[in-house]
Amino acid sequence: DASSVESLDYEVIENYAYRLQQAKRGKLYAWYSVVVKWLFALATGIGTGLAAVFINIAVENFAGWKFSLTFSIIQKSYFAGFVVYMLINLALVFSSVYIITHFAPAAAGSGIPEIKGYLNGIDTHGILLFRTLVGKIFGSIGSVGGGLALGKEGPLVHTGACIASLLGQGGSTKYHLNSRWLQVLKSERDRRDLVTCGCAAGVAAAFRAPVGGVLFALEEVTSWWRSQLMWRVFFTSAIVAVVVRTAMGWCRSGKCGHFGSGGFIIWDVSDGQEDYSFEELFPMAIIGIIGGLLGALFNQLTLYITHWRRNYLHRRGNRVKIIEACIISVITSIISFGLPLFKKCTPCPDIDANSGIECPRAPGMYGNYVNFYCGNKNEYNDLATIFFNTQDDAIRNLFSAKTIHEFSAQSLLTFLVMFYTLAVVTFGTSVPAGQFVPGIMIGSTYGRLVGMFVVSFYRKLNIEEGTYALLGAASFLGGSMRMTVSLCVIMVEITNNLKFLPLIMLVLLISKAVGDAFNEGLYEEQARLRGIPLLESKPKYQMRNMTAREACGNQKVIYFHRVVKVGDVVSILRSNNHNGFPVIDHTRNGETLVIGLILRSHLLVLLQTKVDFQHSPLPSDVRGGSLPIRHNLNEFMKPVSSKGLSIDEIHLDSDDINMYIDLAPFLNPSPYVVPEDMSLTKVYNLFRQLGLRHLLVVPRASRVIGLVTRKDLLIED
Amino acid sequence: DASSVESLDYEVIENYAYRLQQAKRGKLYAWYSVVVKWLFALATGIGTGLAAVFINIAVENFAGWKFSLTFSIIQKSYFAGFVVYMLINLALVFSSVYIITHFAPAAAGSGIPEIKGYLNGIDTHGILLFRTLVGKIFGSIGSVGGGLALGKEGPLVHTGACIASLLGQGGSTKYHLNSRWLQVLKSERDRRDLVTCGCAAGVAAAFRAPVGGVLFALEEVTSWWRSQLMWRVFFTSAIVAVVVRTAMGWCRSGKCGHFGSGGFIIWDVSDGQEDYSFEELFPMAIIGIIGGLLGALFNQLTLYITHWRRNYLHRRGNRVKIIEACIISVITSIISFGLPLFKKCTPCPDIDANSGIECPRAPGMYGNYVNFYCGNKNEYNDLATIFFNTQDDAIRNLFSAKTIHEFSAQSLLTFLVMFYTLAVVTFGTSVPAGQFVPGIMIGSTYGRLVGMFVVSFYRKLNIEEGTYALLGAASFLGGSMRMTVSLCVIMVEITNNLKFLPLIMLVLLISKAVGDAFNEGLYEEQARLRGIPLLESKPKYQMRNMTAREACGNQKVIYFHRVVKVGDVVSILRSNNHNGFPVIDHTRNGETLVIGLILRSHLLVLLQTKVDFQHSPLPSDVRGGSLPIRHNLNEFMKPVSSKGLSIDEIHLDSDDINMYIDLAPFLNPSPYVVPEDMSLTKVYNLFRQLGLRHLLVVPRASRVIGLVTRKDLLIED
Ligand SMILES: Nc1ncnc2c1ncn2[C@@H]1O[C@H](COP(=O)(O)OP(=O)(O)OP(=O)(O)O)[C@@H](O)[C@H]1O
Ligand SMILES: Nc1ncnc2c1ncn2[C@@H]1O[C@H](COP(=O)(O)OP(=O)(O)OP(=O)(O)O)[C@@H](O)[C@H]1O
Ligand SMILES: [Mg+2]
Ligand SMILES: [Mg+2]
Repeated sequence: DASSVESLDYEVIENYAYRLQQAKRGKLYAWYSVVVKWLFALATGIGTGLAAVFINIAVENFAGWKFSLTFSIIQKSYFAGFVVYMLINLALVFSSVYIITHFAPAAAGSGIPEIKGYLNGIDTHGILLFRTLVGKIFGSIGSVGGGLALGKEGPLVHTGACIASLLGQGGSTKYHLNSRWLQVLKSERDRRDLVTCGCAAGVAAAFRAPVGGVLFALEEVTSWWRSQLMWRVFFTSAIVAVVVRTAMGWCRSGKCGHFGSGGFIIWDVSDGQEDYSFEELFPMAIIGIIGGLLGALFNQLTLYITHWRRNYLHRRGNRVKIIEACIISVITSIISFGLPLFKKCTPCPDIDANSGIECPRAPGMYGNYVNFYCGNKNEYNDLATIFFNTQDDAIRNLFSAKTIHEFSAQSLLTFLVMFYTLAVVTFGTSVPAGQFVPGIMIGSTYGRLVGMFVVSFYRKLNIEEGTYALLGAASFLGGSMRMTVSLCVIMVEITNNLKFLPLIMLVLLISKAVGDAFNEGLYEEQARLRGIPLLESKPKYQMRNMTAREACGNQKVIYFHRVVKVGDVVSILRSNNHNGFPVIDHTRNGETLVIGLILRSHLLVLLQTKVDFQHSPLPSDVRGGSLPIRHNLNEFMKPVSSKGLSIDEIHLDSDDINMYIDLAPFLNPSPYVVPEDMSLTKVYNLFRQLGLRHLLVVPRASRVIGLVTRKDLLIED
Repeated sequence: DASSVESLDYEVIENYAYRLQQAKRGKLYAWYSVVVKWLFALATGIGTGLAAVFINIAVENFAGWKFSLTFSIIQKSYFAGFVVYMLINLALVFSSVYIITHFAPAAAGSGIPEIKGYLNGIDTHGILLFRTLVGKIFGSIGSVGGGLALGKEGPLVHTGACIASLLGQGGSTKYHLNSRWLQVLKSERDRRDLVTCGCAAGVAAAFRAPVGGVLFALEEVTSWWRSQLMWRVFFTSAIVAVVVRTAMGWCRSGKCGHFGSGGFIIWDVSDGQEDYSFEELFPMAIIGIIGGLLGALFNQLTLYITHWRRNYLHRRGNRVKIIEACIISVITSIISFGLPLFKKCTPCPDIDANSGIECPRAPGMYGNYVNFYCGNKNEYNDLATIFFNTQDDAIRNLFSAKTIHEFSAQSLLTFLVMFYTLAVVTFGTSVPAGQFVPGIMIGSTYGRLVGMFVVSFYRKLNIEEGTYALLGAASFLGGSMRMTVSLCVIMVEITNNLKFLPLIMLVLLISKAVGDAFNEGLYEEQARLRGIPLLESKPKYQMRNMTAREACGNQKVIYFHRVVKVGDVVSILRSNNHNGFPVIDHTRNGETLVIGLILRSHLLVLLQTKVDFQHSPLPSDVRGGSLPIRHNLNEFMKPVSSKGLSIDEIHLDSDDINMYIDLAPFLNPSPYVVPEDMSLTKVYNLFRQLGLRHLLVVPRASRVIGLVTRKDLLIED
């Protein structure tokens, strides 16, 4: 599995051609490249916003149509209603899993671990391709519309990243866009920046939380950060907010079918509790602890199940994956339709006519108090209110204020257990799946449960169960995903209420601390399982006592000479699978000198194009500037997330084999170096913070040419 | 001036003693140090929260008392009222400027540029001392209570940073706390982390904006960031929120005098506009442009004036500074009291009795519609409503909704011009001064002005002038301070309204872009003026074509030999003022070898303590581990923001001079090195992202000992 991941080179390879190009380019070009970067950010924002609108409209329409059909049928027969309901779900889930298995396997799951890996410096094959984008969009419409216990928010982050990456490399490798115009972004660093924007755009679009998007990109997915980039990410998020708002304004006139009644997830809790008293801090802390425990348990269970799935189930081919998803769909349908049938209905409470709440609500409408399998017209089924509903509406009902005692403890508990199980089981099937909304469902259920106890315990306080549901949601996400600031802001933005900010912070701090005592965050665990070796922000403890030399072990370095026989290159490349090789030259007085580092991928391009082969074993003079540049720099760029050239694909005849090649113009003349006895902690920080791929460990220098201090770096324009 | 700043060493000096200490410490110690860091963060949060509460209570009480006294006097005589008003202001401002000039000169101004510098790696003398903290707190009570056109928010950030830094080094150098217990934070990196927490705490306390605080610390003040730190900063902010809320709850019962009626700045605009239409985007963009222009102008004007002040006015000593502040105070009093007298009063509008708004308001109360120098009882003076008021209340009035046409365009314009001028002139006087609240005042004035035009232009729309005032405030701050995400979140948190988030983003993007076309942000400009050489996040354009060797010029490196005569050390240190020196040793076969880097400050400690002097010019064997450690690592720590030892303070007799000293145990054996022909862009990124002070430029290596790749850094526990 680890063979499918490969590191990315974010370092700028300052080879001869690059330096020439830089020297040729004027200040105007710098302006041009800035403008292009902003245009790409704009395009990413618009693209992601539109994708989100499309997914939302599609999901809302499928789900709305499904529920209204089912409701109209169950007026006559509950059994027929169930069958129709189940079949629609099955069809949607089947379409989703079929797309994923047969067309875009990399689009399964949430995609966030892979994106996190990409921004950390590891490329997973297939993750940012055009087909993955298409599969993700249509797959997540199917899986969410089909009522599985998963969300569309994680996949939207992946979608945003795909859009950004495709824009960044000028379209998919198959359907090239005008490439000359897009050449500016042919550096992996710029592409990575754009993907960061794409991530933020995804969150901004999924939750309509622009600031949350920026923070998510910052806290959760990137491993390094520059404040310049922050502004561009912010811009992208703002664009998304505008696009989504425009689309929703357009839909308000009813042009989008069922969309608009449910719509984008904003669970307005602005009518929640006004204030909180100090006694309440205790139950809130308990919510935090429960969140930490259940979140950590969720991570652990999904880890085991995913592990088992990967090693046993999914090995058996696509058919097993499809059957699995279909079975889970049927089970989900049975539970969500069947369980409410066993629940006795509750008589409607007396509701203030002005509050706008109806009990029971009109069939086929959204709202609380659904009349489902009740004998009496004036009754409602509380379990159906949350179970037999879209997740967005269920959450809205759970968060709702002024509806004290709407749910019975028994119903909430039933739902919690069933839905938790469903979420755990559904995680890891071959469909696009986000964990945000299921997490909010689970959290708000036990939150509301705690809230019910608080209401009956402190009778005098003005307590809203909905507020506790909100805190519960925050706590579960915190306990599972272990984000802090970004989650806090996202929660505030989706509930449109700032009053509870300090409470949400508190609950998150507790649940993250509790969760961290057990295991790592959901995305980190999943990334590790998928063989994505993330570099954490903190170096390991034992690195303090190790040196750089010890980290390399007693490896025998495989290197090249400056002018090297083509045949030797081929045999060396065949003999190992390292990706970077130091290049050695000899000075006049016979000493060796490390003149740079050459990448395997560059060597392969040289071998393939053959234009640089020469008959003489002497170096062509680079320093004199007489060397013609026979390559466009773009030839050396590897398309993102697709396998590059391999040595086995290159065919050379015996004439070629005996020629020479001068590596000097193509190598990176100034790779980062560390002295052999630097401690590994320092090496780690250097490696991670600069986003490196190779670092040369060298002996102590014999002399110092100069010292660079701050003063030397303060150059005026 | 540049002599008063010095770089900080954030790099861990892995010398012999440090390595021994590391090796001795167990895993338990790592736990202990984590716990201590969190405890310090907790203490910082509590301290900053309490300081903020204290400042707010004091300011509100002074201001409340001043206004109620004046109001009761002007019922009889406007002239007597004016005299009393002016004298109270004068007394407060005098006390402030006296404290600053005679006790804590480093507490003048906002302190944010200096903190930014500190976190970027430059220490300004005096900036984080105990006396600065005291001066800042009491000085800002005087200057804000005295009604000057400045705010208390910037100083609170500085206060938070001071508290954090003092905690981090275990109290002030004069009043040592239990130092053994605090030894964990004796690394400059940990101290810096704590100061970051302190900054965030300051913002969180000043604006009651915990998330805004985290983002401010992240975006504006730090130049590097780790996600571990993010969580601790978040925690500190949450603590501040809890402390401040507790204190405010306690004050609500009336125990804090005038505090509570004005209180912490939260200008609730939740009754603002419900929605916005697309036609409004145009006037909003105009607000953004105005904000960019006025903000850039503000930066430029304050730059000129501060420059002039530093070079001419403030050179003449403290008396001039005091006179200057007093004159400005008198002028401010005259303008704020006098201008409203010239304004004709307006008849009260018909107000819905249920809205809670009174016209005219009862004298001495807070609210809109003040009756000031009006002939008729049923009239109000709109200029007095904003001018003759505390800034917090003025802003509240400017932001207020449902009060269309309260202000005449003429009054707003008068106020804008006068207040802008006052703010520019007041900036740079020798009192603690923040620019947030004055900025909000200026911005909301022109925002409301634009809003008035919009209201009269688009008659049909449901437009609130207060909403435009809010956008104006955001635009001015954006145009002047050039923050994005943090400012956005702070604005949302202080106005307690999420609806306008996308609009605020839009306005900020425009105003920042416009402002950036003219000059740098306020804090960057001020930092540069003060000789604080910040390293921006983007390397300069021409660095692309320079190499590391060129950056060093043809400097002759001053270095030490491993075992060196004490007399030589003294004379070398006297002959230059470099702060780091490479140390050279000879191998058996006569080659030289760079064995590390020694800091001037460490050499000075060695010279002062004298315990390491030896008679023999031969190295004492370090590798054998036989070397006794005669120093506590803490001896080498320089207290923050105070001048360290100087070579002139060290007195050696002639015996000492002829002894030797072996530098090997004290030098940093693995300073960061770069090959001579690395491009300066790469060097810059390395230097800035790792927070370095010295970087050695060395010749190409002769061989490669090994390669470090990601795989080598993935060590399991
Ligand atoms: N040219 C080389 N000579 C000798 N050892 C090398 C060389 N390049 C890498 N190594 C070592 O081989 C091991 C695996 O190297 P490899 O090149 O596969 O890197 P990696 O960590 O898998 O990253 P990537 O994703 O770039 O392949 C590492 O321990 C590394 O130190
Ligand atoms: N040991 C040295 N030998 C020769 N030149 C040096 C040495 N140390 C520093 N320099 C050079 O002298 C100049 C000023 O150095 P200085 O040591 O004062 O550093 P600085 O930038 O002022 O930072 P600091 O705040 O640490 O003093 C720089 O150009 C630097 O390259
Ligand atoms: Mg590999
Ligand atoms: Mg210096």
